[in-house]
Amino acid sequence: MYVAIMGYGVVGSGVASLLNKNHEHILKKSMQSEMELKYILDRRTFPGDPYENLVISDFSKIVEDDEVKIVVETMGGLNPAYDYVVACLKAGKHVVTSNKELVAAKGCELLQIADENNVNFLFEASVGGGIPIIRPISQCLAANDIDEIAGILNGTTNFILTKMITDGMTFEEALLLAQKNGYAERDPSADVDGHDACRKICILAALCFGKHVYPDYVHTEGIRKISLSDVEYARAWGGVIKLIAKAKKLEDGRVSVLVSPAFIQNHSQLASVDDVFNAILVRGDAIGDVVFYGRGAGKMPTASAVVADVIDCARNMNRKRFIAWQDCTDGYVADYLENVTAFYIRATTENAAAAVAKINGLFSGVTTLARQDAPEGEIAFVTAPISEKELNEKLALIDEANIESVIRITNY
Amino acid sequence: MYVAIMGYGVVGSGVASLLNKNHEHILKKSMQSEMELKYILDRRTFPGDPYENLVISDFSKIVEDDEVKIVVETMGGLNPAYDYVVACLKAGKHVVTSNKELVAAKGCELLQIADENNVNFLFEASVGGGIPIIRPISQCLAANDIDEIAGILNGTTNFILTKMITDGMTFEEALLLAQKNGYAERDPSADVDGHDACRKICILAALCFGKHVYPDYVHTEGIRKISLSDVEYARAWGGVIKLIAKAKKLEDGRVSVLVSPAFIQNHSQLASVDDVFNAILVRGDAIGDVVFYGRGAGKMPTASAVVADVIDCARNMNRKRFIAWQDCTDGYVADYLENVTAFYIRATTENAAAAVAKINGLFSGVTTLARQDAPEGEIAFVTAPISEKELNEKLALIDEANIESVIRITNY
Repeated sequence: MYVAIMGYGVVGSGVASLLNKNHEHILKKSMQSEMELKYILDRRTFPGDPYENLVISDFSKIVEDDEVKIVVETMGGLNPAYDYVVACLKAGKHVVTSNKELVAAKGCELLQIADENNVNFLFEASVGGGIPIIRPISQCLAANDIDEIAGILNGTTNFILTKMITDGMTFEEALLLAQKNGYAERDPSADVDGHDACRKICILAALCFGKHVYPDYVHTEGIRKISLSDVEYARAWGGVIKLIAKAKKLEDGRVSVLVSPAFIQNHSQLASVDDVFNAILVRGDAIGDVVFYGRGAGKMPTASAVVADVIDCARNMNRKRFIAWQDCTDGYVADYLENVTAFYIRATTENAAAAVAKINGLFSGVTTLARQDAPEGEIAFVTAPISEKELNEKLALIDEANIESVIRITNY
Repeated sequence: MYVAIMGYGVVGSGVASLLNKNHEHILKKSMQSEMELKYILDRRTFPGDPYENLVISDFSKIVEDDEVKIVVETMGGLNPAYDYVVACLKAGKHVVTSNKELVAAKGCELLQIADENNVNFLFEASVGGGIPIIRPISQCLAANDIDEIAGILNGTTNFILTKMITDGMTFEEALLLAQKNGYAERDPSADVDGHDACRKICILAALCFGKHVYPDYVHTEGIRKISLSDVEYARAWGGVIKLIAKAKKLEDGRVSVLVSPAFIQNHSQLASVDDVFNAILVRGDAIGDVVFYGRGAGKMPTASAVVADVIDCARNMNRKRFIAWQDCTDGYVADYLENVTAFYIRATTENAAAAVAKINGLFSGVTTLARQDAPEGEIAFVTAPISEKELNEKLALIDEANIESVIRITNY
């Protein structure tokens, strides 16, 4: 049984090294007498690498080699990954990927092509790095009707927020440190603007609720605007700010999907998820809340998830795993302005008394927050649950203050 | 396709109700056109119960009915569960159980009988209630060499300890409250003396390390001796006391398995696991630490895990799932006195100066702990890591103080 890897970067080289390191163990789990790496597709060369002789730059060698039964796609990006994966599936090869962009954009179609060709398309590593989440949702929680799923799905932003919370760094300082540590790219926008978390929650939403959710349909806010004053007010409220990606089933069959910073209460299991760690909370009708926690990125954790999928393919060469969902339909993803939630709001004013009076007139159940060393004219409060649409309408009526920050409050 | 349930108690009735409530969803996941409950075995009758007509008291009806393909065992206890499960497996029926006593005592043998008869014996619900753990370990973490597994596996003791920590209740008060809430039995010894947690860690150790571990081989300490002073010293140290069950692979191929109260640092993911919740930490070579958190007991969470196994059996009627381990061999479980760990020690003395001098002479790296309102003559300290054997020898040399409490300190 032969395996090929497409893309010999961080994750791809981790997969090669793990296949070698735990070889006996993996063979046993795969119920195979042999499993060997045959090709590594990459445009670069890797002189001195233990697998340098396996590196090829011609994709057709892989797709035309009938001995290659499992192809690992760790190239990232949509192109040419998409074309290559389609070609492999159509050639009857099982495909395992860690590429969340690919799954979020093309998952529904690729699962269908896999189905038509009697092979598996598996992507455990695309969400939560090495944390087991795709398989537990599709198998272990199969008896549940899942109502909601929410998580800290991006390690870079969680590292930045942790440094802001525990070390009092500004966003800019924490971002620089993340870049220095290799946790953030030079252009950090995919992480800090929430796009990476968005792709992952789209995959989880499809898996939990049965229909593809395209990232473009999801209201996504990043963490650039979070200030240390917000962090302090969250502390005064009894919690921390985390970038939360969530998907919820609505009673009418639609789903609400959202990525944004949020206040999390200190006693929540999500509040203690620090640094580059990820955690995913699944709320099912029978099980209640279940949380999965671990390293959401990194060479070996991600490779571990990829190889688990390779083992699953090897054990099920002639048998399909049960993952499938339908394409998105019009209006399936609800407008985020319909969401009802409590909000934290920070504002500055030259007339605090008038602003507070106006706010209390507009919003019901307002709780005022205070922090040490607040500059004069700063006010902060928490509203009762209200729809985003209504919130925006009411905020527009406040002439007595400038709204500086609006952050959602979760109930996890 | 017909299913039978043996034992119509809390979990068994949850299974019946879940099979009914999420029927369509379960059929789809099972890839079956029909799945129906045919018998419920119980000595009692259930007038007015929606399934009262299915209740039978004669086991032979189940074992002799070829239409029954999957049998759920939720009777608990070893007898007659063991005989019934053996008979079902030998009759070619898949068996799903939530019975940790059965799996801990007979798992190796039952897996072998299942294997010989080409059926599955699944037990996701036997550890961690509804938390997915058996399948993630055997499948999702399959690419890892697992080094260690540790968990809060008993909800009753975790509830009691939580009440002691957060509300300052004594052990006795918290136990009474647990009994009042239905979390503890009238005879609470299986929970508070650690036997329940012991059975679960035996199952996890077998799954992770490949050999059966019998509960009798495991040094097991419960929480009866934990006092509020210990809780206070743990707080002063920066942590909490939890009942931890753990299993670790040793370099020579043996395993160390232990159940005991332990100090857990506040920033650990295990520290914030409160009330009846459970959590399991798995440490793998590739993945690092992964934590699974959720409701470790209760009717519907446990039923959810049972039904997930039923679905797995239904999807794999002619195919075996990969779970198997060997029997235990002589000397496989290391003597707990070999364990090396740091310890917390509390003692009383009439001559504190002499006692402290003696302690500092005997132990290296001693850190003294203090608490408010400590009675005169009470001393508490933490040692550097030391083997349990050496610890006991040194403690025996301390004539200047009475040792009141010895608690292990973890590194999770």
